[in-house]
Amino acid sequence: MSEKSGFHMTPEEFRRHGKAVVDWIADYYERIESYPVMSQAKPGEIRASLPKSAPQKGESFDAMLRDVEKLILPGITHWQSPNFFAFFPSNTSFPSIMGEMLSAGLGVQGMLWATSPACTELETHMLDWLVEMLDLPGKFLSTSTGGGVIQDTASNSSLCALLAARERATNYASNERGCDGKLVAYTSSQAHSSIEKAAKIAGIGSKNLRLIEVDEDFAMRPQLLAAQIQRDLAAGHTPCFVCATVGTTSSNGIDPVRAIGEICRAHKIWLHVDAAMSGTAALCPELRWIHEGLEFADSYCFNPHKWMFTNFDCDCFYVADRAALIRTMSVLPEYLRNKATESGAVIDYRDWHVQLGRRFRALKLWFVIRHYGIEGLRHHVRRHVELAQQFASWVREDSDFELAAPVPLNLICFRHRSGDATNQDILDRLNQSGALYLTHTKLDGKLTLRLCVGQTSTELPHVERAWSHIRQAARRGAYSS
Amino acid sequence: MSEKSGFHMTPEEFRRHGKAVVDWIADYYERIESYPVMSQAKPGEIRASLPKSAPQKGESFDAMLRDVEKLILPGITHWQSPNFFAFFPSNTSFPSIMGEMLSAGLGVQGMLWATSPACTELETHMLDWLVEMLDLPGKFLSTSTGGGVIQDTASNSSLCALLAARERATNYASNERGCDGKLVAYTSSQAHSSIEKAAKIAGIGSKNLRLIEVDEDFAMRPQLLAAQIQRDLAAGHTPCFVCATVGTTSSNGIDPVRAIGEICRAHKIWLHVDAAMSGTAALCPELRWIHEGLEFADSYCFNPHKWMFTNFDCDCFYVADRAALIRTMSVLPEYLRNKATESGAVIDYRDWHVQLGRRFRALKLWFVIRHYGIEGLRHHVRRHVELAQQFASWVREDSDFELAAPVPLNLICFRHRSGDATNQDILDRLNQSGALYLTHTKLDGKLTLRLCVGQTSTELPHVERAWSHIRQAARRGAYSS
Repeated sequence: MSEKSGFHMTPEEFRRHGKAVVDWIADYYERIESYPVMSQAKPGEIRASLPKSAPQKGESFDAMLRDVEKLILPGITHWQSPNFFAFFPSNTSFPSIMGEMLSAGLGVQGMLWATSPACTELETHMLDWLVEMLDLPGKFLSTSTGGGVIQDTASNSSLCALLAARERATNYASNERGCDGKLVAYTSSQAHSSIEKAAKIAGIGSKNLRLIEVDEDFAMRPQLLAAQIQRDLAAGHTPCFVCATVGTTSSNGIDPVRAIGEICRAHKIWLHVDAAMSGTAALCPELRWIHEGLEFADSYCFNPHKWMFTNFDCDCFYVADRAALIRTMSVLPEYLRNKATESGAVIDYRDWHVQLGRRFRALKLWFVIRHYGIEGLRHHVRRHVELAQQFASWVREDSDFELAAPVPLNLICFRHRSGDATNQDILDRLNQSGALYLTHTKLDGKLTLRLCVGQTSTELPHVERAWSHIRQAARRGAYSS
Repeated sequence: MSEKSGFHMTPEEFRRHGKAVVDWIADYYERIESYPVMSQAKPGEIRASLPKSAPQKGESFDAMLRDVEKLILPGITHWQSPNFFAFFPSNTSFPSIMGEMLSAGLGVQGMLWATSPACTELETHMLDWLVEMLDLPGKFLSTSTGGGVIQDTASNSSLCALLAARERATNYASNERGCDGKLVAYTSSQAHSSIEKAAKIAGIGSKNLRLIEVDEDFAMRPQLLAAQIQRDLAAGHTPCFVCATVGTTSSNGIDPVRAIGEICRAHKIWLHVDAAMSGTAALCPELRWIHEGLEFADSYCFNPHKWMFTNFDCDCFYVADRAALIRTMSVLPEYLRNKATESGAVIDYRDWHVQLGRRFRALKLWFVIRHYGIEGLRHHVRRHVELAQQFASWVREDSDFELAAPVPLNLICFRHRSGDATNQDILDRLNQSGALYLTHTKLDGKLTLRLCVGQTSTELPHVERAWSHIRQAARRGAYSS
């Protein structure tokens, strides 16, 4: 502690400790496969190792870094392990980590253009780059009527889309006067839980969210959507919002966006397309069929923080009519007024989401896109899809197991033929072994194992070992024929 | 690019580049006072310097870091400069930056306890530490009926509080059936814009948010609140939510929480207390008067990312009855079910906010609290308050200027006596000079300058120079008497 800095750490001390943290992170990735993928900690175990109260006196950084190793690591589930196949990936990469480091170092706020112009302009620019990179409809460009913004999560994108839809349907009256209880929204029975959460938050209510049934591929049946809309109109309801999913969480089901979009257009209903994980696939021209019909969408999102090597949080949310979104979210108090805003020549992203404050998240996206180039990103996405297809072929060829859903991209839903108890037992054995981490879902009422290939460093040997472990777990449980 | 890693950066490359980033950040803090505090970039200038499309081939990290220096820095407003006195502080510190680095490196998800137990348990532990550190009511402890969670912003905390209030008032029916248009909410005319935004989002409507008038110190008048509630009840409305502010954004006004709380309790209305910036002051026993009456609150938030050396985002949100919050936010799909959740022995923070995915933000809070100790944090908060009080005394003694509001803590609202045009001119001169950055508000209908002391490295010479620049700007404009 120097006279000048009080209790603050000096830049010189930061150079030393910061470099130790960089080495710690590099070491972590070099040894990541040595840890059980799923933390084996028991509830309360981590807390029990921590002092009951905060320290009165400051402590050394070396001690803190030692405690990360000793107290925190045992409670970590290693999402970045190449043997992590659970949920959806939330992958990252070293260029992204450095983008996050710089963002933390700069410590700027991007709530208004004026509060740090580069934070807003780099974000707009990256979101425009991505329109071209994924071949999204041109209306999502900031140079058109729409534009993109980084949200924290697809949950918040869905909420913002639903809010903008609600306001368009009520001619912006519910923002003023409150909801009238007549609004209804639609999604498939396989949509993400965040859609129901958004319906609750927006005051629409979960009973006014219609869950449309799906076909045998777990994709929404558009004819059932059309019929439900007709029934709701006849009953005096106001249909305002449809969410189609490109790659459902449960099984990677892909809703027919074009057919849904035509229905929405006929009824002037806002169409949001949630492609949280799977959207990244559209980097590859041969996989762009997933977005067929996207020109009908009023809004769209996908998450570079899932499958594009960009660390959480980074969800890209696009709207076709930015005025509709801004009109929904904007409140302008005196203390935020400034000349740039009033000139109308700039974007103020605070009007594009719930939060006011916002980090400089475009830096990491810039670093990722520039480090890999389009070529490198395509290479890795193709590789993941290829590995998943190989895994699916092994399941198909094994008489003990079956595929439970189509495998359009990088998620395999499969199960042992002996039923739920067997599959639960296999899942528990695998996850407790620490060798890999899988999660489950229910499809057609049956417990189903999910294996998603999307971690940055997952390669063929990891997928081969995963399949070997799965078969061994089944054999140890003596379920094999 | 190696055979093994494809296009990925290797850990060895990351060691080299990561350390260069650490040095860049240390250099940045050493030279931060050499930049104009407010970016002098013109709208579109940063974008114009960037390539129109993403690169096909990957680029070197060295080139990217050079571009940060060359293309991005001119568009940065230096929030971490000791000469930044605008808005509210969003301060950070080297220990916090390293916490963010480690969080990015680990890349874990904390949506469920099971997805990384340490992420949840360290967060719960830090939020409990802070209850003791700020002497908050014991009901906010996780070991009581309530508990705390890290949100991104106070905007989201206010939204969650309003949603929980809405649901309690409707016996959890509006989540199911939608809002009925009868709910009303209350805050002061000086409350943050996020309260109105929350009322819009929650489907209550901004016309159903009553803005209660304030007294001469810009604090809510409780007798007017009580009268408005009576009128609303008589008109058949359902009062559900009051937000009191401890330290308004505009002028640091402090609502009388006890008097407001007694009214809320009598009518069973949810009381939320927003202490986004000022809450940190309660680290110091002699400043805890700001929380007088907080035991009446159902929820509370303050932001370590404003005034506690913890980089954005880190808002601490507390509820007295966690079951009310969880019941409002929870949706549990099959693919998130797990044994730990079903045991009831763990906290799943996804049910405490809008988002599902969440970063490991408790690490940086842990590092900050341990690095400074309670002693160090108090030292710096006291120092900022002391510097602000010195500045206020200079304003009081200068016949050309006047204080526009009380100065309870670290924000000074003041103005030149010559009127709005003069103050606008002074503000523009100062901010264009690059020597410091101030923002404004309107109080009693008059343009008012705001100077907030809260940046990590702000010391007496910075505040002295700020005052000197302000007086010079006034003299150059020839407004002095």
